[in-house]
Amino acid sequence: MFSSADQNRALELLEAIHFFSVKNWSPATSTNYSVRSTQPGKFIISRSGVDKSRFAYEDLILIDGAGQVDPAFAAPGVKSSAETDIHTALYRLYPEVECVLHTHSVAGTVLSMTPERELRFTGLEILKGLEGNATHELTEVLPIVPNSQDMGEILSALDGRLAGAHGFLIKGHGLYTWGKDIASAKRHIETYEFLFECELKLRS
Amino acid sequence: MFSSADQNRALELLEAIHFFSVKNWSPATSTNYSVRSTQPGKFIISRSGVDKSRFAYEDLILIDGAGQVDPAFAAPGVKSSAETDIHTALYRLYPEVECVLHTHSVAGTVLSMTPERELRFTGLEILKGLEGNATHELTEVLPIVPNSQDMGEILSALDGRLAGAHGFLIKGHGLYTWGKDIASAKRHIETYEFLFECELKLRS
Amino acid sequence: MFSSADQNRALELLEAIHFFSVKNWSPATSTNYSVRSTQPGKFIISRSGVDKSRFAYEDLILIDGAGQVDPAFAAPGVKSSAETDIHTALYRLYPEVECVLHTHSVAGTVLSMTPERELRFTGLEILKGLEGNATHELTEVLPIVPNSQDMGEILSALDGRLAGAHGFLIKGHGLYTWGKDIASAKRHIETYEFLFECELKLRS
Amino acid sequence: MFSSADQNRALELLEAIHFFSVKNWSPATSTNYSVRSTQPGKFIISRSGVDKSRFAYEDLILIDGAGQVDPAFAAPGVKSSAETDIHTALYRLYPEVECVLHTHSVAGTVLSMTPERELRFTGLEILKGLEGNATHELTEVLPIVPNSQDMGEILSALDGRLAGAHGFLIKGHGLYTWGKDIASAKRHIETYEFLFECELKLRS
Repeated sequence: MFSSADQNRALELLEAIHFFSVKNWSPATSTNYSVRSTQPGKFIISRSGVDKSRFAYEDLILIDGAGQVDPAFAAPGVKSSAETDIHTALYRLYPEVECVLHTHSVAGTVLSMTPERELRFTGLEILKGLEGNATHELTEVLPIVPNSQDMGEILSALDGRLAGAHGFLIKGHGLYTWGKDIASAKRHIETYEFLFECELKLRS
Repeated sequence: MFSSADQNRALELLEAIHFFSVKNWSPATSTNYSVRSTQPGKFIISRSGVDKSRFAYEDLILIDGAGQVDPAFAAPGVKSSAETDIHTALYRLYPEVECVLHTHSVAGTVLSMTPERELRFTGLEILKGLEGNATHELTEVLPIVPNSQDMGEILSALDGRLAGAHGFLIKGHGLYTWGKDIASAKRHIETYEFLFECELKLRS
Repeated sequence: MFSSADQNRALELLEAIHFFSVKNWSPATSTNYSVRSTQPGKFIISRSGVDKSRFAYEDLILIDGAGQVDPAFAAPGVKSSAETDIHTALYRLYPEVECVLHTHSVAGTVLSMTPERELRFTGLEILKGLEGNATHELTEVLPIVPNSQDMGEILSALDGRLAGAHGFLIKGHGLYTWGKDIASAKRHIETYEFLFECELKLRS
Repeated sequence: MFSSADQNRALELLEAIHFFSVKNWSPATSTNYSVRSTQPGKFIISRSGVDKSRFAYEDLILIDGAGQVDPAFAAPGVKSSAETDIHTALYRLYPEVECVLHTHSVAGTVLSMTPERELRFTGLEILKGLEGNATHELTEVLPIVPNSQDMGEILSALDGRLAGAHGFLIKGHGLYTWGKDIASAKRHIETYEFLFECELKLRS
């Protein structure tokens, strides 16, 4: 049902979703994913409540910037992700961003429970995986915000904390990151998940 | 040999069994799985003694509520799981439950050896993976009961301890959980196994 | 080149070898595997020096009880495993044993470095995976012997230490176990590797 | 575009690259790999910036000893790896070496952050996976050098430190190793990564 121009994006997003599932970064029905549609103001997003190990092309739907499901994709039980508002807010904040991804790994969840307000990573080559980083000799800050079932509260908690960040952690919940295209956003996920696994081992 | 109405259930259960095997949650011949048959009072269950990495459609059999193998499935060496009584007891206790699953992971086994009588999980988004939980702001209690080769003893130990629980751990043995359909029960397994891995890392 | 009666055994052994490789229990060219041939006094065994992630049917060869490669399998560079003497000694010791398997996992290697002379496992349901164990309420002893490049030394060190054991660890080197058929021996490998992972986490 | 003599090498290298990706040793666009071409003074190498989980035959290119991309492989955006100079320097240093591999695992990264100037491994059977080692009774030294975005600095830091070594670690960055052919170099990667995982667990 996607336009032929959107089909390629949907398929590339689907491949990333399968990759994350195999890596154990999307247990059960957790996590959600989106990419801008070629139609301005529209987004391709994972629908709510799907087992990510069985996620299929048909589980991607088209929404507008208010999170409304496009009539062509409306069907009984089809809802956009409960966290749609975070995706659309990030697209408004970052016009150059084409893709927003949210994973939910054991390592990210465990690290997010630290009493600190942010994670700081420094001196690791993998930091070059984050857009614009040309060296390992820098400190990357990943903000941690409290979890809430009210997306507005999460967005308020992010206020003023995203400057210079490539993503954020929601406490006990997981990682959001984004990129100028699907490949960049996927690279950010892999980079952060690698950093999380290193950090967990370095702390223990 | 299943009725055509039962074939779909058996195939969906088989897919979940393969998923758990790939995740390393069913070493060797451990673990067992069942789903209600479309025939009232009958159950589709994994037969005893099968290597779960080679488990096949033919290893699912039909039993009645007393654990007797349906004559159509009887063959030399075909027995229902040694833990069949736990499955049938749970179906009697929960008429709305359609599927009972038992995994045996390293993380679950290790945590079950705690001297505490139960595990308590709180504040994690993944808790919403358990049926009826609409928020992370709750405490989920997972009872731990002593292991026994006598299923009656395990069932007695569960007496009065399942109120509000979505599953239980048998000490040194693994996890039981259930759901209103196969998808729900599988989601519960993934949720608990994720919680176990987080908890193990948070404790170390 | 195997007799048709031997082909099934070779293929079943090959499937187990691939399973162990995927589990990360046979890094690089480590580990070796054998099964009795249907010809008395002959054995099907993995040849030496093969990358286990690329191990193929053609890498299984026929040897006699002295470790000599059957002429039909002799070719330049084809040697039986350096540890062939351990396999043939175990077959002499246990006439009822049909299959000998040796894996080399991280968990087994790390645990084998303990200063203790043996590992003891108790109270875990998975112990029933070892032949003849009908309950978790027992203590299973796994001897650890010093490593040597001289198989005679390893065999001497085992003298008098295998009574009641289902396998042994060579220090810094890995696990040997066996069974009445390939399925039993594979179940023993999975049981021990599960025990190793539990034990490592219980110790930390 | 490779000569038919080079195609087999490229395909074997590709298989190793896929193997490392599945093992989680090449997150995102990290890592690089090369093998000598059958044309003297030429090398087949992974091009820069490719997601290693999607690495394809077309991502292998031909370069000369100065790191210049062969005109037949030049296309917009095609660059040799940023670390090409390390590969070509190793080929100059070791005329018998046919293959140079660089992985970037969590375990290697974490261990490389030790304040020590080198890792020492001793007494483990897996050490025989490193070319020329006939026993576990030796000590293998793996130098650690500081990371830099200037390959010349890394090469200078290696000066005089490679005697007797089969590889080296760059701090916070990962492992380089090599071999007389692709199979040997791959075996070295697997050997070191196994050693890293053992060492991490032995230290904790």
